[in-house]
Order: sequence, then structure tokens, then C-alpha cells
Amino acid sequence: VGQGLVRILRDRKPFPFALVAVSDPAKGSLADPEGLDPDALLRTVSDSGRIDSLAAPFRGWEATQTIAESGANVVVEMSPTDLTTGEPATGHLRHAIEMGLDVVTTNKGPLALHYRELTDLAQSRDVLVGMEGTVLSGTPVLAFGRELLKAAGIRSISGILNGTTNYILSRMEAGAEYAEALSEAQRKGYAEADPRGDVEGSDAAAKVAILANHLLGADLRLGDVEREGIAGIARAEIENARAAGKRIKLVGRLETENEGLRASVRPAHVPLDHPLASVGGVSNALTFETEILGEVTVSGPGAGRMETGYAVVSDLLSILRERGGRRR
Amino acid sequence: VGQGLVRILRDRKPFPFALVAVSDPAKGSLADPEGLDPDALLRTVSDSGRIDSLAAPFRGWEATQTIAESGANVVVEMSPTDLTTGEPATGHLRHAIEMGLDVVTTNKGPLALHYRELTDLAQSRDVLVGMEGTVLSGTPVLAFGRELLKAAGIRSISGILNGTTNYILSRMEAGAEYAEALSEAQRKGYAEADPRGDVEGSDAAAKVAILANHLLGADLRLGDVEREGIAGIARAEIENARAAGKRIKLVGRLETENEGLRASVRPAHVPLDHPLASVGGVSNALTFETEILGEVTVSGPGAGRMETGYAVVSDLLSILRERGGRRR
Repeated sequence: VGQGLVRILRDRKPFPFALVAVSDPAKGSLADPEGLDPDALLRTVSDSGRIDSLAAPFRGWEATQTIAESGANVVVEMSPTDLTTGEPATGHLRHAIEMGLDVVTTNKGPLALHYRELTDLAQSRDVLVGMEGTVLSGTPVLAFGRELLKAAGIRSISGILNGTTNYILSRMEAGAEYAEALSEAQRKGYAEADPRGDVEGSDAAAKVAILANHLLGADLRLGDVEREGIAGIARAEIENARAAGKRIKLVGRLETENEGLRASVRPAHVPLDHPLASVGGVSNALTFETEILGEVTVSGPGAGRMETGYAVVSDLLSILRERGGRRR
Repeated sequence: VGQGLVRILRDRKPFPFALVAVSDPAKGSLADPEGLDPDALLRTVSDSGRIDSLAAPFRGWEATQTIAESGANVVVEMSPTDLTTGEPATGHLRHAIEMGLDVVTTNKGPLALHYRELTDLAQSRDVLVGMEGTVLSGTPVLAFGRELLKAAGIRSISGILNGTTNYILSRMEAGAEYAEALSEAQRKGYAEADPRGDVEGSDAAAKVAILANHLLGADLRLGDVEREGIAGIARAEIENARAAGKRIKLVGRLETENEGLRASVRPAHVPLDHPLASVGGVSNALTFETEILGEVTVSGPGAGRMETGYAVVSDLLSILRERGGRRR
């Protein structure tokens, strides 16, 4: 994702941002208050897998020192997701927010586990938190829901939030057995060697928690989302659903009821004429059911380096707008 | 649409707007600088078909006087669409803009015929022009494209932009003949007694021109959009398409090529697994093809009083944000 972001900054200029530091435990760390050259970073990492052969005034800073000393106005957190502890990302975000720096994260862990703590802290420090990349990667559904649909009265949200399981179910519908479809997804790089986070539904459940907190004002944690994965699904079930005019999809769902909110991820029988039914392969989609507009659906990519990099750029542009172009 | 707007203002308070004047050649005109009561307006029009039995300091003002003397900060233009002259809406908008009043229009005529003139005039007067309701009614695709997708590099836009023709094609796919489907659409109030604007494609073409101008910086007029309607389509064609894994949809399309832009509305054979294929009945949808995100699709309602009223509310909220809550 970091490389996707840097490619966008290089190729789609002019953006009114400079990249003043990069810190990666595997690829090395550089900082330059005058700005690092995106093209040089990309070429060096592509040649050597690392960035630290480049010249820069500061080198070898780990994340904590980078946050403290780079002089950046915004910290972009893109470390690997850990849905059990939320670390190291939560610590990075807390640190940056306490310093009064605006933050952008593509990491679901901190927000699926500590949303309210982090956003309360951010509010107390007048800090902005961008998180567009945590749900549907660069498809801007969080801004869509929050800025453009909120006044329509969102009653429920249903979505296909995980591309790996959607790919597996699409392949099974085309005739593959579960194990076959899973190993195909692994070969194509859609599923990890340990696919549990995807197929048992925790990736989707983390996104459901984020949607609940960000769009419906809830205070949910990953563990509050009822969860059932796709590992138990047989091809016969998929065929039976099909015969009944339905398609089995792993659906994340939020439903407001009375004063409460039900949050779940589970395989659902979606009618073929519903927009979510036609979302195939690794695509993702979200249907908002609203009081005034009825159903509104957005579909788009659910993952990808460039796609998630775009989410970061969107968040940066939105921070810039919010700050009125002024440095604080 | 006016009544939809007033219902939203009544039922979904608090909105930081007051309704200071209403002018309708058929239902009467009232103005009150202290604000008119939405509930009283709705009850009176529902009882008598008119509003002018209500007490108000000013009555009987036609549109021109209302714009000139109501003291409103924003003029909302919702007169009937005329795609030949653009009047009376274009005159109303020009008048309001020249007075320095922000405007919102749900009327396609002025923007499909005089977009550049009106937006240039607005810019010279520091006036904001809201037009969300002109395409996909309240489904906020204009703001989505302009605010959330622009940096992704929009290469093409394809959409189902007319609910009447989509309804007719959906019914024909279910077995109806063209004439039968059309009269069914007329009975349900989806098609007008003179259905030419819908079935010959000019309604969709007007929306294509607005999308081109608003999202792609073009200077197109309705007449620049190549146009073919659905009246000539036989059921056999629809069945043949279906046998080939496709569905015939009336698709409005904008395609950037070299330095130019191709704009068209015509029946297209859409593959069944494309998101536009599953948009049935009177729903509408828009697919943006972007450089960074690939295809992103939004589907939702394409018409309706409350839905278009919501578009006006969205535009008003966006004007308020832009003005920072300040009156000028």
C-alpha cells in the first residue's frame, strides 16, 4: 500500500503534499524535512527490496522516532493488520494523535478494537482521523455514507466486504469445490497461506464494526459482531440457493432496531435481482438502506495497492480541505 | 418535488434553513421573511390543491418578483423541464445569479442547454450552483464523482439514466411487447402521456450533457449527444441478447478519447455480470471507469418527489458548508 501511495504521488501530480519520512521495519527508514523523491524511492525498492541505499539526512529511525521527529503534519499508518491486539498500529496512532498530528490509517485493527478511544483522543487534541482505506479500499464508501447519505436517514447497511470469500463463492458457483476454490484464491494472491481471517469472517466483521462506529455513531468492537464464515458451505447449498433464484454471499450487516444495533457477518441468500448478488470475484459492495432514498448501492474494488493508496490520497485531500490549506 | 422538499424540511428537522417564499403558477404564491410553516403549507395544498388560502404578509408574487423581493439567500428552481428552450428555468436562474443569490436546480433544461453560460455567470458573481437532483434524483452521484472520485482519474462514465425506459425494457424482458410495457409504464405514472422525451432518449441525453459538463469539464449541449431511443426494439432482440448472456439497456455514455469526448445515448448489450445489467425497473445507476480504481458503480433511485427533494436538501447543506454557515 505504501508503494501504491508513493506511485500516486509520483504519477498524478501535482499534489500539495511532500513525503518527509518513510519508516518500514523490513525495507528501511529515511527522513528528509525537504521531502523525499517518490521516483527514487520506488526505483530503489524495486531494485533492492529496500530504500536505505538512498541518501537522506536521517536514516534508520523506527516508527516511534519517525512520528516524534520527522516534522510531518500527517502520519499515515500502514503497518500489517493485527485484529487481536491492534498493535503496533494502535500505539503509532495514539502517539501521533497525542502529538497533535493528523492521522490516516489503512489498518483495520486499531479501529475495530479501539475506535472510540482513538477518536475521542483525536477530538480532544483537534486531530483529524482518515480511515477511508479500511473498508472497500479506495472505493470511497465511508465519505459517501458520512457526507452524502447521512441526512437521508441510514436504517441499515449490508455489504460484501471481503474479496477473498467473494472470489471463493463465485468460483464455487462456477463449479469448483471449496478446497479447490480456496487454493486457487491462494495461488492468485487473494488469500493468505493462513486464510482464517478471511474465511472465518473476522476481516469482514472488523469492517462491520468500523462502519457501525463511523457511520451510525455506535461503539462496537470486533467481538460484538456475530460471525459465521464460509468454510462449512457445500456446493450443494450453493446450487440449491441458485435453483431458488438466490446466490450465497458472505454479507456483513448492520441493522438499527428500536434503540439498538444488530451487527453480523454470515452467509446470506441474496435474491439474484439485488445489486449485491451481481458483485462477483474480488469486488466489494455496500448497500445503504435509507429512509428517504430507499436502497443506494456502491460497488468497486475491495483491495489492491494502488486502490488503497488512493484511499490515503483521498483522506489527505480531505484533511487539507478541512484545514483550509493552513498548517496549524 | 417542491412538496417532497417541504416534507423533508418538516419531518427531518432540525435543518438550519427557513422557507421564506414559495411561488407556483398553479398552486399560488406566498412570502414571509419570518418563514413559512412547512406543515401548514403541506396540509393546505393537500386539502385544496393550492397554498394561497394561508395567511402571509406577501401573496401572489410570480417567480420574478419572488426572486427579487423575498430576501432569500438561496433560490430553488423546480419548474417543469423544457429541453427545447430551457425556459422559464434558465431565466429564473440567470436572474437569481445576477442578484448574487446561490441557486439550486432540479431542472435539467438550463444545464443541458446553457451550462457554461450559467456557471461562468455564477463564478463571476461568486454564486454557488447546486444541481444534484438533475441526475439520478437524490442518489448523490454528482457529488460522488466530483468530490470523491475526481482524483482517481475518470476515463469514462456509463449509466442507466432514465427509469421509464429501464422499466419498459425490464418488462419486455419479462415477456411484454413494447406497446404493452409502455402503456403499463403510463398507467403506473412512470411515463408521460407523450412519452417521447423518455423513449427517444432526450431525457437521458440531457443528463449525459450535465455529467460531461459537471464532471469532465466539457462544454456540451444536449444536441451534441448522439442519440438513439428504444422505440424500435423488438422482443426478439431482447431474447437474442439474453441468449448471448447480455441484457439490452438504454445506456448513456461518455468516453474520453485523445483530447476529445464522445457522448451518446443508445441501447447497449450489457454483459449480465456487469453491475449495470442488474439495475431493474425504475432504478438508475452510473459506472465510473477510473484510472486508479477501475470501475466504481453507484445505483439508487432515479426519480421521485421525496428523492429529488433530498437532492435539494443535499445541495442546501453543501452550500451551507461552503459558506461556512455565514450569510454573505
